[in-house]
Amino acid sequence: MRMVDIIISKRNGNELTDEEISFFVNGYTKGEIPDYQVSALMMAIYFNGMNERETLTLTRVMADSGDHLDLSAIEGIKVDKHSTGGVGDKTSLALTPIVAACGVPIAKMSGRGLGHTGGTIDKLESFNGFNVSITTDRFIDNVNKIGVSIMGQTADLAPADKKLYALRDVTGTVENMSLIASSIMSKKLAAGADAIVLDVKTGSGAFMKTLEDSRALAEEMVRIGNGAGRKTVAVISDMDQPLGNAVGNAIEVREAIDTLRGAGPEDFTALVYKLASLMIVLGGKAKDEEEALGMVKDVVRSGRALEKLADFVAAQGGDSDQVYYPDRLVVSDKSVTVKAGSDGYVEKIICDEVGVSCMMLGGGRASKEDAIDLSVGIRLLKKRGDEVRKGDDLAVIYYNDETRFGESCEKLRNAYMISDVRPSDSPLIKEIIK
Amino acid sequence: MRMVDIIISKRNGNELTDEEISFFVNGYTKGEIPDYQVSALMMAIYFNGMNERETLTLTRVMADSGDHLDLSAIEGIKVDKHSTGGVGDKTSLALTPIVAACGVPIAKMSGRGLGHTGGTIDKLESFNGFNVSITTDRFIDNVNKIGVSIMGQTADLAPADKKLYALRDVTGTVENMSLIASSIMSKKLAAGADAIVLDVKTGSGAFMKTLEDSRALAEEMVRIGNGAGRKTVAVISDMDQPLGNAVGNAIEVREAIDTLRGAGPEDFTALVYKLASLMIVLGGKAKDEEEALGMVKDVVRSGRALEKLADFVAAQGGDSDQVYYPDRLVVSDKSVTVKAGSDGYVEKIICDEVGVSCMMLGGGRASKEDAIDLSVGIRLLKKRGDEVRKGDDLAVIYYNDETRFGESCEKLRNAYMISDVRPSDSPLIKEIIK
Repeated sequence: MRMVDIIISKRNGNELTDEEISFFVNGYTKGEIPDYQVSALMMAIYFNGMNERETLTLTRVMADSGDHLDLSAIEGIKVDKHSTGGVGDKTSLALTPIVAACGVPIAKMSGRGLGHTGGTIDKLESFNGFNVSITTDRFIDNVNKIGVSIMGQTADLAPADKKLYALRDVTGTVENMSLIASSIMSKKLAAGADAIVLDVKTGSGAFMKTLEDSRALAEEMVRIGNGAGRKTVAVISDMDQPLGNAVGNAIEVREAIDTLRGAGPEDFTALVYKLASLMIVLGGKAKDEEEALGMVKDVVRSGRALEKLADFVAAQGGDSDQVYYPDRLVVSDKSVTVKAGSDGYVEKIICDEVGVSCMMLGGGRASKEDAIDLSVGIRLLKKRGDEVRKGDDLAVIYYNDETRFGESCEKLRNAYMISDVRPSDSPLIKEIIK
Repeated sequence: MRMVDIIISKRNGNELTDEEISFFVNGYTKGEIPDYQVSALMMAIYFNGMNERETLTLTRVMADSGDHLDLSAIEGIKVDKHSTGGVGDKTSLALTPIVAACGVPIAKMSGRGLGHTGGTIDKLESFNGFNVSITTDRFIDNVNKIGVSIMGQTADLAPADKKLYALRDVTGTVENMSLIASSIMSKKLAAGADAIVLDVKTGSGAFMKTLEDSRALAEEMVRIGNGAGRKTVAVISDMDQPLGNAVGNAIEVREAIDTLRGAGPEDFTALVYKLASLMIVLGGKAKDEEEALGMVKDVVRSGRALEKLADFVAAQGGDSDQVYYPDRLVVSDKSVTVKAGSDGYVEKIICDEVGVSCMMLGGGRASKEDAIDLSVGIRLLKKRGDEVRKGDDLAVIYYNDETRFGESCEKLRNAYMISDVRPSDSPLIKEIIK
């Protein structure tokens, strides 16, 4: 088998066989097939696509390129959750304690933030002493004891995807539905859960800007998940403005805690409740979403969800007092307010600008090696549809570095699009793909 | 300017600007842009093509990536000739002395053979002592004195094309008309001639299998040549069977000499006369093809063309007696005959099989480093349309290595397709593109 023949075959519009897909993925991972042949193949796939079988095979082969997390020592149906990424997306922080409190075991790997998006692992480090680099044994042990554990992604999970994604990123071959879906799902398959709930973001702040594209991606991923024997459901949710009101790290953790206390922002709460209900049903702990939603409301109302977060934080060396006294999560006390420049309605809040504004404060990374300041962040006081008058406070910036907040304010001000007409309502949850 | 943006732009179907084309060609040649980005771009070009301007710019930039041969010290209009390659194509050997004898200066760079096709430089080395590695000064001096010189291609002629072609060859991105045309023409532009005659082969033994594709390539190259200020004409000629009767090195030189004496094979003679006439008109030595053809016949009849070959060979250190006594060109005296296995008509002679058969004898190179045996070769006794009876001699193989000719015979036998019906006549020269 020669790589050049595989490239030519795909270029000519043929289906690749399972053997051909294995050959190029494994050869590439081992360094036996050079970058320049793989990038040419990726471009041929960009133009000629891959069918369902090819996409599923690619995903499986990438998942099998490294370690599989073995969660068999955990009793029950393990349900994982993945978000395609957005701004203000602290969903996992509130969602996982709720679901765990309802009896579904959560053994989750998460990532760090990069560019304008944050990461769960960074946010969790806002708790003093919280350790994301625990061993797999302790990780599994914690899930068995407490019902939930979250650790940083290990390097050997789907290494083929890691190498392939890095290549696609610099060769203009990211934007293909099969390649995007297989990239995400290969890591999910290797992460070992029995069922998966996907939160596919849609809108200006999402990777997929249109509902049509988001639906196509969601459908592709659901097909792959089910094809690989993992029950998979996708929610398509709005990312035309940041999720909730807080953007940053410690400040987002505070908002997640508010939500576990039943006092979170409406949009964020709705999304968490929806995802939690779907996970509880998939985890076999409720017969339908209605029952599951009742359980969710119950664990919030009773404080059991908050308690679950505290236990989880403590089990990974974190200061659980910060869960009960969220003021002890350090948010900078230097703040400045961004004001409306005109009368009207908030038409949209450009997510990327808000994310970059936070990154500029030091709350995010421009490149992988950057250190971040967990105490800075942004609180959005007005959201889409809100009426504003010139001079009204739109948002608050919490900063530390005096030299950096000017540019950050400017970006945040520009993120707010004020219009004369009230924008039509846009539902947070667009569709559920099963 | 970022390479990834150039890739995405072409991928999205945009035209590349001249600046973008310069950026990637020059960056790649200098090693500043990696193979994997260029191969992705080549695949995007394969799918989305390049327009006339882009193709011309690519050609010019590649031509400018290395040395330009300066032929200004040679009086008159210098006319170059290029063949897209085939089997038995000894055209330059007969053509250049004829054209030079008619007063058009020939300063030509040629290549060596690879795979199933031979090369002019190898064939010339059949003359004892012939030196293809002369200095540029001597090359120009020889043209001024004798009217013709042929040297091996120097390494710094269009290095960008060399690097790009090697990459395309292993990434499934060869087959694009703009890329093929610009690759050929960049070397022709750098080689410095004022006018160019192209011999575009068509048929099973050619790079372009169909007349349609051959015409498209010819038109693209003629456009580029004229666009770059070089008068360019293309002949589309048949390669559904080897050209002439001899395939090899010394054996092909003998056939070229026969042709200069007026006793060459009909098909080969017709092609040489046609190309020569076009070159003489472009060189300003005749007002039209008819007059030029008269001149060609005259220099052959008078022996001046043969004399020109002898002078040319002598000027590069070769034994010119071998021109007058071609039996002194060493062709192996060990031979074996390939016989027809059935009655019928020769329908076609698969060129690639004949070429590979010759390569197996040692007359060609499987890889660039291989040494070749100039004395081996093949003489075709029957050609397309000839009637044969079972047991008739089809061809003779001249070999040296007893262990190798068995497989070679088998290949040659399989190259002959014998049919019950006489094939329809197929003209040697299909079209002229001006």
